[in-house]
Amino acid sequence: MQELIERLRSFRDNRGWDKFHTPKNLAISVSVEAGELLELFQWRPEDAPLDAETVQKISDEVADVLLYLLLLCDKANIDLAAAANRKMDHNENRFPVSRSYGIAKPQVDGEGP
Amino acid sequence: MQELIERLRSFRDNRGWDKFHTPKNLAISVSVEAGELLELFQWRPEDAPLDAETVQKISDEVADVLLYLLLLCDKANIDLAAAANRKMDHNENRFPVSRSYGIAKPQVDGEGP
Amino acid sequence: MQELIERLRSFRDNRGWDKFHTPKNLAISVSVEAGELLELFQWRPEDAPLDAETVQKISDEVADVLLYLLLLCDKANIDLAAAANRKMDHNENRFPVSRSYGIAKPQVDGEGP
Amino acid sequence: MQELIERLRSFRDNRGWDKFHTPKNLAISVSVEAGELLELFQWRPEDAPLDAETVQKISDEVADVLLYLLLLCDKANIDLAAAANRKMDHNENRFPVSRSYGIAKPQVDGEGP
Repeated sequence: MQELIERLRSFRDNRGWDKFHTPKNLAISVSVEAGELLELFQWRPEDAPLDAETVQKISDEVADVLLYLLLLCDKANIDLAAAANRKMDHNENRFPVSRSYGIAKPQVDGEGP
Repeated sequence: MQELIERLRSFRDNRGWDKFHTPKNLAISVSVEAGELLELFQWRPEDAPLDAETVQKISDEVADVLLYLLLLCDKANIDLAAAANRKMDHNENRFPVSRSYGIAKPQVDGEGP
Repeated sequence: MQELIERLRSFRDNRGWDKFHTPKNLAISVSVEAGELLELFQWRPEDAPLDAETVQKISDEVADVLLYLLLLCDKANIDLAAAANRKMDHNENRFPVSRSYGIAKPQVDGEGP
Repeated sequence: MQELIERLRSFRDNRGWDKFHTPKNLAISVSVEAGELLELFQWRPEDAPLDAETVQKISDEVADVLLYLLLLCDKANIDLAAAANRKMDHNENRFPVSRSYGIAKPQVDGEGP
């Protein structure tokens, strides 16, 4: 991940794009790309198998979401991997196996699996 | 990232949540969490500095987006870091420094910095 | 719809909220509310019947999406109902019954039903 | 609005598209279209004036969001205009002028203007 962040910084700075990268704009970009990812599933039956072409498109869109997440974290001085691990600590406490097994979180306390 | 993926898989499987994790549902979750991230910026002036409390909230939301991205990638057999690097290869070709310096992508060819 | 627009304008102006209502902020709000609407479906099976409580929640969220759409249209001088009718004219031409019957748009030309 | 709903129903049923229109799929579509709307603002300065071409694009996207909202409401037996008026009743109580004037809702109680 560290290499990717450095690659992104060079990419951004070599093009003088830092000035567009306010945290607000980058949060918009994460959301726009998440919408493009979702569009790939818009009319798909829930259980339809993923063909190679769709996987390729998904791959492009998840990449875009991650790239903008990393650019946002860079601006906000957030270590994304550390943040994800802290969230996992929290989730492990919040959803003890004994109370959560096989139950979608909405039925536990208002969030999702 | 690999450690995080394994942690997520254990978390999911220990709770019997795999059955909820269709690619379509996970793409929905990425989008829902991206919306929660965006909400933190909803009424903020573009140039408002980020205070510690807001950074903490951003940190929680970027974590959620990443966690669902990784769960989706796990289901679709996508290596997220590799996908992001391929996208960077593509972006570097698409936006040569000489044609892109200081110009938001929309003015180049319809995308953003 | 016209009554609703006038009610929204009074609500906004009586509270001095016009200054927050840039088109960009309102587009963010539409997206944030659409995410809250989507969250209600996050882990639902596609064919699960809608109970009264869920319908009430959907009702609150579709209302929020519409209210922000109308506030955005007010700022951009767009007549939302007229825009929707123009889009329907366009869709009726684009998806002739003879070529579209029973086929999700993705298979026709890249959009959804 | 009633005319628009009837036009949408005929459009949908003439093409045999009702089978794709689960509430969940329609909520996805609202979110996808809201993302396309947001994309138009992705790199725009907050105070940039809206040119005629951008207004035309906004007009197309707000129309798509409304059309999917109406299709979702049709499936969930929700009267969208009535839902919006109920939400306005609620908002008028929740944000009394005396406590809300000129203050973004986040500072009042966690929501936006």
